[in-house]
Amino acid sequence: MAKDSYLVGLVGAGIGPSLSPALHQREADRQGLRYLYRLLDLDVLGVAPQAVGELVRAARDLGFDGLNITHPCKQLVLEHLDALDPQAEALGAVNTVVLDAGGRAVGHNTDVTGFAASFARGLPDAPLERVVQLGAGGAGAAVAHAVLTLGAGRVTVVDALPGRAVGLADSLVRHFGPGRAQAAGPDELPELLAQADGAGGLVHATPTGMAAHPGLPLRAPLLRPGVWVAEVVYRPLETELVRVARERGCAVLPGGGMAVFQAADSFRLFTGVEPDRARMLADFEELAGAESSVACAG
Amino acid sequence: MAKDSYLVGLVGAGIGPSLSPALHQREADRQGLRYLYRLLDLDVLGVAPQAVGELVRAARDLGFDGLNITHPCKQLVLEHLDALDPQAEALGAVNTVVLDAGGRAVGHNTDVTGFAASFARGLPDAPLERVVQLGAGGAGAAVAHAVLTLGAGRVTVVDALPGRAVGLADSLVRHFGPGRAQAAGPDELPELLAQADGAGGLVHATPTGMAAHPGLPLRAPLLRPGVWVAEVVYRPLETELVRVARERGCAVLPGGGMAVFQAADSFRLFTGVEPDRARMLADFEELAGAESSVACAG
Repeated sequence: MAKDSYLVGLVGAGIGPSLSPALHQREADRQGLRYLYRLLDLDVLGVAPQAVGELVRAARDLGFDGLNITHPCKQLVLEHLDALDPQAEALGAVNTVVLDAGGRAVGHNTDVTGFAASFARGLPDAPLERVVQLGAGGAGAAVAHAVLTLGAGRVTVVDALPGRAVGLADSLVRHFGPGRAQAAGPDELPELLAQADGAGGLVHATPTGMAAHPGLPLRAPLLRPGVWVAEVVYRPLETELVRVARERGCAVLPGGGMAVFQAADSFRLFTGVEPDRARMLADFEELAGAESSVACAG
Repeated sequence: MAKDSYLVGLVGAGIGPSLSPALHQREADRQGLRYLYRLLDLDVLGVAPQAVGELVRAARDLGFDGLNITHPCKQLVLEHLDALDPQAEALGAVNTVVLDAGGRAVGHNTDVTGFAASFARGLPDAPLERVVQLGAGGAGAAVAHAVLTLGAGRVTVVDALPGRAVGLADSLVRHFGPGRAQAAGPDELPELLAQADGAGGLVHATPTGMAAHPGLPLRAPLLRPGVWVAEVVYRPLETELVRVARERGCAVLPGGGMAVFQAADSFRLFTGVEPDRARMLADFEELAGAESSVACAG
């Protein structure tokens, strides 16, 4: 029961450089679907993040099939939805809203499923007994949920803001059970990573390594070869963390996979059609690569 | 400076059967444009015609490039626009709103240009000294403007509501000059059509002949072979008026041309790209023909 066309948007602030329109539209073109992906940038519209509810209603009225939701609206959108899938409900954050034929707005979180799929594909045999996670913000919450859903024994959350690490660990324990998560301070990283050696890895979910926040999120010598490293940052495609970890012999998972698989999962939710993830990954590398070239040329 | 995609909608009541989405999208596909045309049906949305202003604003915020406007909003939309082209301003009705890059909403009327183009193509050498027009509603106003713009000597407006005929005639005289229009009663049709014989024709702009209003809008014997007949109704493709007039030897212009050319002119306004009108006409005949077959089968 495919529709004859799909209209989708992304709501967020400062989203001009998003690769989502190209990622979704290229895959739709190959699938023979009429598909249009528009950016609804709060900064361009000159509205506050609280306007997300109004945008969801307007999108429903104007025939949109769905919306992706990004910073700073992933929590704010919750109260404007008619239902949540269990993943989004557990996390308390939504990055995908399906506007169904009955006029309902249903929230999903494909950051969680996207990271899980990327991890399963890129680090298929990685041990998950001890996982250390840097960063307890929105991305951190999503990937911690994903890692625990994949069966991680215990996730230790480290954040520059101790209260935030404790808050996320408490929430994870409530959802996944006693002992599955704990908080720790940055000074405990050497010991935590020694424990993870051969038994787990490091998930990085802070902004460090993005163009605006260059550098490494921890000291290079802490990266033992027996610790896998999963990155969430995907701009640049290869962060300094990914480069240094690879040089030191770690198995690495760059951030692009999560970016692509969350898009693929959203595409499936919007259309009911299974996208070709390998083609979307190739698109992403081409698009993000072209972007880096432009940045270098400038 | 083509955009990479076009998002367009139609605002009106009971527009479910509209052929506009298919007409626009087929031409866009052939032109290689990513183009999506959505129906924003007041009945489906459960809102009053007065909501048209809110829909225009929401469409602008959500990245629409333009809207077509139909019954019952063609006049109501005027106060919500930032500018009008001269044709729409003279007529006081808008069927096309271009939402430009600067956030402005500019009104046009391609019913006028569409009828004029269809007439020039379908009845190229028709005399225009004396034109009799049946119907002084919204469609009647648009086609009377078109016929006078094409150089008609005088248009005589006949309507079942005498006040409406007088109102339109007065407005036409204000815009086109003294003597260019007058009102008359249905009882004057025999004399008017006798005067038009060899010197002009009949424009039909009432709902008679549509599926819901079958029949002829005037007595068949009044259709002299020396009077051309231009129809506005396009569902069915061949109305009883068109069929009977053709049988009686009149040159005829079916309503489909206006329907296609208003769509073609809107397409050009939305995209800046010149559509292939012959291909759009062929599409229309196929789409409307398929529709008739379904109706017969049902």
